[in-house]
Amino acid sequence: MTLNVGVIGTGMIGQDHIRRITHVLSGARVAAVTDVDLDRARTVADDLPGAVVHETGQALIADAGVDAVIVTSWGPTHEEYVLAGIAAGKQVFCEKPLATTREACERIVDAEVAAGRRLVMVGFMRRYDAQYGAMKAAVTGGAIGLPLLMHAAHRNPSVPDHYTSDMIINDSTVHDIDVARWMFDDEIAAITVLKPRRSTKAREGFNDPLFVLMEMASGVLVDVEASVNAGFGYDIRGEVVCEDGTVELSESAGAIIKSAAQFAGRVPQSWPERFAPAFDTEFRAWIAAVTAGGTTGPSAWDGYAATVACDTAAAALHSGQREPVVLRERPDLYKEA
Amino acid sequence: MTLNVGVIGTGMIGQDHIRRITHVLSGARVAAVTDVDLDRARTVADDLPGAVVHETGQALIADAGVDAVIVTSWGPTHEEYVLAGIAAGKQVFCEKPLATTREACERIVDAEVAAGRRLVMVGFMRRYDAQYGAMKAAVTGGAIGLPLLMHAAHRNPSVPDHYTSDMIINDSTVHDIDVARWMFDDEIAAITVLKPRRSTKAREGFNDPLFVLMEMASGVLVDVEASVNAGFGYDIRGEVVCEDGTVELSESAGAIIKSAAQFAGRVPQSWPERFAPAFDTEFRAWIAAVTAGGTTGPSAWDGYAATVACDTAAAALHSGQREPVVLRERPDLYKEA
Amino acid sequence: MTLNVGVIGTGMIGQDHIRRITHVLSGARVAAVTDVDLDRARTVADDLPGAVVHETGQALIADAGVDAVIVTSWGPTHEEYVLAGIAAGKQVFCEKPLATTREACERIVDAEVAAGRRLVMVGFMRRYDAQYGAMKAAVTGGAIGLPLLMHAAHRNPSVPDHYTSDMIINDSTVHDIDVARWMFDDEIAAITVLKPRRSTKAREGFNDPLFVLMEMASGVLVDVEASVNAGFGYDIRGEVVCEDGTVELSESAGAIIKSAAQFAGRVPQSWPERFAPAFDTEFRAWIAAVTAGGTTGPSAWDGYAATVACDTAAAALHSGQREPVVLRERPDLYKEA
Amino acid sequence: MTLNVGVIGTGMIGQDHIRRITHVLSGARVAAVTDVDLDRARTVADDLPGAVVHETGQALIADAGVDAVIVTSWGPTHEEYVLAGIAAGKQVFCEKPLATTREACERIVDAEVAAGRRLVMVGFMRRYDAQYGAMKAAVTGGAIGLPLLMHAAHRNPSVPDHYTSDMIINDSTVHDIDVARWMFDDEIAAITVLKPRRSTKAREGFNDPLFVLMEMASGVLVDVEASVNAGFGYDIRGEVVCEDGTVELSESAGAIIKSAAQFAGRVPQSWPERFAPAFDTEFRAWIAAVTAGGTTGPSAWDGYAATVACDTAAAALHSGQREPVVLRERPDLYKEA
Repeated sequence: MTLNVGVIGTGMIGQDHIRRITHVLSGARVAAVTDVDLDRARTVADDLPGAVVHETGQALIADAGVDAVIVTSWGPTHEEYVLAGIAAGKQVFCEKPLATTREACERIVDAEVAAGRRLVMVGFMRRYDAQYGAMKAAVTGGAIGLPLLMHAAHRNPSVPDHYTSDMIINDSTVHDIDVARWMFDDEIAAITVLKPRRSTKAREGFNDPLFVLMEMASGVLVDVEASVNAGFGYDIRGEVVCEDGTVELSESAGAIIKSAAQFAGRVPQSWPERFAPAFDTEFRAWIAAVTAGGTTGPSAWDGYAATVACDTAAAALHSGQREPVVLRERPDLYKEA
Repeated sequence: MTLNVGVIGTGMIGQDHIRRITHVLSGARVAAVTDVDLDRARTVADDLPGAVVHETGQALIADAGVDAVIVTSWGPTHEEYVLAGIAAGKQVFCEKPLATTREACERIVDAEVAAGRRLVMVGFMRRYDAQYGAMKAAVTGGAIGLPLLMHAAHRNPSVPDHYTSDMIINDSTVHDIDVARWMFDDEIAAITVLKPRRSTKAREGFNDPLFVLMEMASGVLVDVEASVNAGFGYDIRGEVVCEDGTVELSESAGAIIKSAAQFAGRVPQSWPERFAPAFDTEFRAWIAAVTAGGTTGPSAWDGYAATVACDTAAAALHSGQREPVVLRERPDLYKEA
Repeated sequence: MTLNVGVIGTGMIGQDHIRRITHVLSGARVAAVTDVDLDRARTVADDLPGAVVHETGQALIADAGVDAVIVTSWGPTHEEYVLAGIAAGKQVFCEKPLATTREACERIVDAEVAAGRRLVMVGFMRRYDAQYGAMKAAVTGGAIGLPLLMHAAHRNPSVPDHYTSDMIINDSTVHDIDVARWMFDDEIAAITVLKPRRSTKAREGFNDPLFVLMEMASGVLVDVEASVNAGFGYDIRGEVVCEDGTVELSESAGAIIKSAAQFAGRVPQSWPERFAPAFDTEFRAWIAAVTAGGTTGPSAWDGYAATVACDTAAAALHSGQREPVVLRERPDLYKEA
Repeated sequence: MTLNVGVIGTGMIGQDHIRRITHVLSGARVAAVTDVDLDRARTVADDLPGAVVHETGQALIADAGVDAVIVTSWGPTHEEYVLAGIAAGKQVFCEKPLATTREACERIVDAEVAAGRRLVMVGFMRRYDAQYGAMKAAVTGGAIGLPLLMHAAHRNPSVPDHYTSDMIINDSTVHDIDVARWMFDDEIAAITVLKPRRSTKAREGFNDPLFVLMEMASGVLVDVEASVNAGFGYDIRGEVVCEDGTVELSESAGAIIKSAAQFAGRVPQSWPERFAPAFDTEFRAWIAAVTAGGTTGPSAWDGYAATVACDTAAAALHSGQREPVVLRERPDLYKEA
């Protein structure tokens, strides 16, 4: 049985997921695509035997030949498509963010709660990374005691000229926000954002790097160095400090070369290089869950909480103050483990 | 377009490849199976929608609904099925060994040469492992000079009671034999096998570990420690020493845990754990090549050369002498890079 | 020519330095000792051929047979002995802290400035550690650009029952304070101290771990995790993040053992294990400098700045606020590189 | 109490040990020197307050102001000075080799046995290296079972033009020979030497690298890659494979730098860089033992066994055959642990 998937948004990440579903993974095919740029959608569809091009996301969602929907369009359009998917009773995989405002996320949560079952998975792929998985297993396994702190670094080699400090939070740190919530099965209580010395590679007025401090409800303190002009690579670091030990992401394995007075290994150069296996695992899990009649992984609640935390972090960046993260009450639908 | 694959041999590795094709990879489905134990074949087929069970490998190969064949049966039966596949003009993926005797391998090579095109790929999955790939890139890239030596270790945690010293060569070292030929794009000229101190975990008369020395035609010396009662894990090591540097397989990445006075990482515990991604990549390459009308990867010649090298190593083990590896002339079919 | 050294304070660290001078290093001998516990001083002297026991530190300093003085007594007594040493025109090596209050440190600085030459070295041994040295060489070498952040962790396996949160700052973090000033050749502008989740191994009211944030005058942000019940070892971590790369202290080298499904290396278990070579190097440098007629290394100004930073950190711990570090003007005596 | 040491041979290594005794270690001073080049000896003595220059080694040994003797002269002269030291009843530290021929070593052993007590220590400094020490502790500790194999590599960055294949054995591999005997507390039973592909950096007729196989009496097999044109560094590798685990020398610790798509650490560039702390520890042990009236460490028997093994390895290199190592019976003097 092959799952027929419709993809809304055929930009870079949309195309990557289409490639994944078509050429890498079993169990699903891309049956329909659409994009704000219809020519791009048609070009993509040319390589997809039997795929239909729809003029709008709404039409795609309504297509009876589409079993489930992937939303990889521009962030501000996510709400509309996710709500439509829920209304149609179809499973939706939505790339982060779930939606760009707290209110939009709440409308999605409300709709899903009203539907009475989970229909949305949000694309926080780190939860499917083998190293993060091993880290969480160590933290929850109990052998090293209760967690007290987490140190993280999110380093991008470079960013486009239009990048802003807020985007460091919304595009980069959002992953660390989700990791913290998932790792400790806890909500973030407050956020402070510090501005270390500015990289000379960042233009005037653009605070890069940032140093984000998240206080979990339990008291666990998570610090995140977010740098987007690191130059040397795409370097994702993490260490959880527990009472009796620590657990740390290792450097990526690979061949170690000795030459010219040093031993050296490769640092990944991009997020696809670093997280390709995690994306594969993530979609494999989603296809399996949807085929079995449900969904899995990060929920609309997780997407909502991440968006609120990003908003709070942005407020903290601008206020220079510690800002509390205020969430609505968690609906029962999201209370299962 | 989905490739319809028939699988001959539904034991452990056959089932693993069926799982891979069915649940992991895109582009192929298992359309038919058979096994010497037909009940086992039927049980396996029960989970494969639309799969036919054939009473014999020959019948499976003859099935018009089977586009290509995977041979994962008992080694001594490989020759028959590979020859039948060639005769039927169907692409064959054959797990190692290609065949268990030099003569059988020669008959396969002759048949393929007579067919005038490659129809056989042999399952030396290490060629598809990311670390070995990085190692080969470093060796052939030129930055560290010509290769001079290679050190290797092949450590299994344990083996069944019926295991013999010859099986250390045929089941374990055969992979190192193929790696050496592939890494240096060269043939093995001679082999010597030494017997280090016997592990007390090996029964009387069973030489474990072995130390296998392979002299490549170029003079590169490859040493392989082959241990099959290593206990602590499935540990595959390799370092190529070149004139200006070395390249070494790193430890597997994963989380590093600090506790109780040490920092520690995981050693893989089995070949599926260590090489699962390599198997996926290998089959992805085969499916793509067969779908495109050809094949790829290790050839019948590679299978032949590996079997001859294993025979030579076994002779060297028993004679205690350096034994030359004698190969027939390489047919033009196998002379491309 | 052998330097005759007098040691004031024969407790644990005093005895360790006496052992070092007597049995490890060349160029000096312990000619005199004293201690608040004279019996202890006499017991120590019994193993030191020709060593005199003085009843007071002042008498020891006045002894014509004492060329230079090591102060390893209780912190609050440092001021008196250092001032006496300066008054006597003798070189003084003073273990940290230089003195326990800002005012006491200022009196020492004033006395040394009045003397017109440096007579005091403060025992910040990390400056003599090979790894920190390599880190500083990388930071100042320019190949990885200007420094932006530093991440540090100071983990003690355990502490005595009487330990307090202030002692985490004064006894542990003081080293990170000096490292930051030295690494960036800069002063600390402000300090904030956060209280992560409390370890259940710390008694009620004792904040362990602490998370100390130091803003350097240049804007470089230094974060220090200070844990004193880490259990698994004495683990000192550091990473400087520069514009084009990072430099990190590696795990201590040693033998790597593979067994029981893991590869593992040792984490040091105490500060003597981790820093013994640094202490040796530090004293070798001091003996050489004093023998040559001067001193070297961390100055009275460094000791003063560290004490002020500790005071500020303690204030920040109790206020919960970001506290500015206010230093007097740096005298010319300390303006050389 | 200061030990008065006389040094015979003030070339590079002699000067390094003089520096060590004079400026690094406590407990000894250089009281006398001599050299085949007396001008060189005088120049060295100019920096050593109170040191006498003797015209011959014999005169130095006879000097009543010399308590103990260090022999760092040209290898073929060692026998004469060691025998003279024994005859004079003075403790002798002799750099490797103890003597250059089996017969010369036997005369030393005979003389020491006649003297009835150990008077000779041979300079195999690796026994004092912290990493080798940790390796031996793991091997003898029992937690990873009986040793079965050892893999080693001895890589020099480059050698002078006059270097020969025999010197690879006598100058480089001799250390691996001693390590094997010490690590397993066992004698070498037979040696085979293989000639891998020749480095193009080695001149015609000079076999570099070599691959030396040593069979211990217990059956443990030790393989040593000896390369003397490795270019990238002075790289000493070792792994002992035991029944239940392995123990391996780690890469040298130091700062890890991330830049330009890689993380990298330093490889030592020379034996002084790699083994300086081991030399310090070695001499500290010797000074302490001699001051206490005896000696310690590698004995004349160890020196004899190493020379015989080197002779055997050279014979194996030239014969291309496995050559047995034939030792005389071990005198009781050397039977203690």
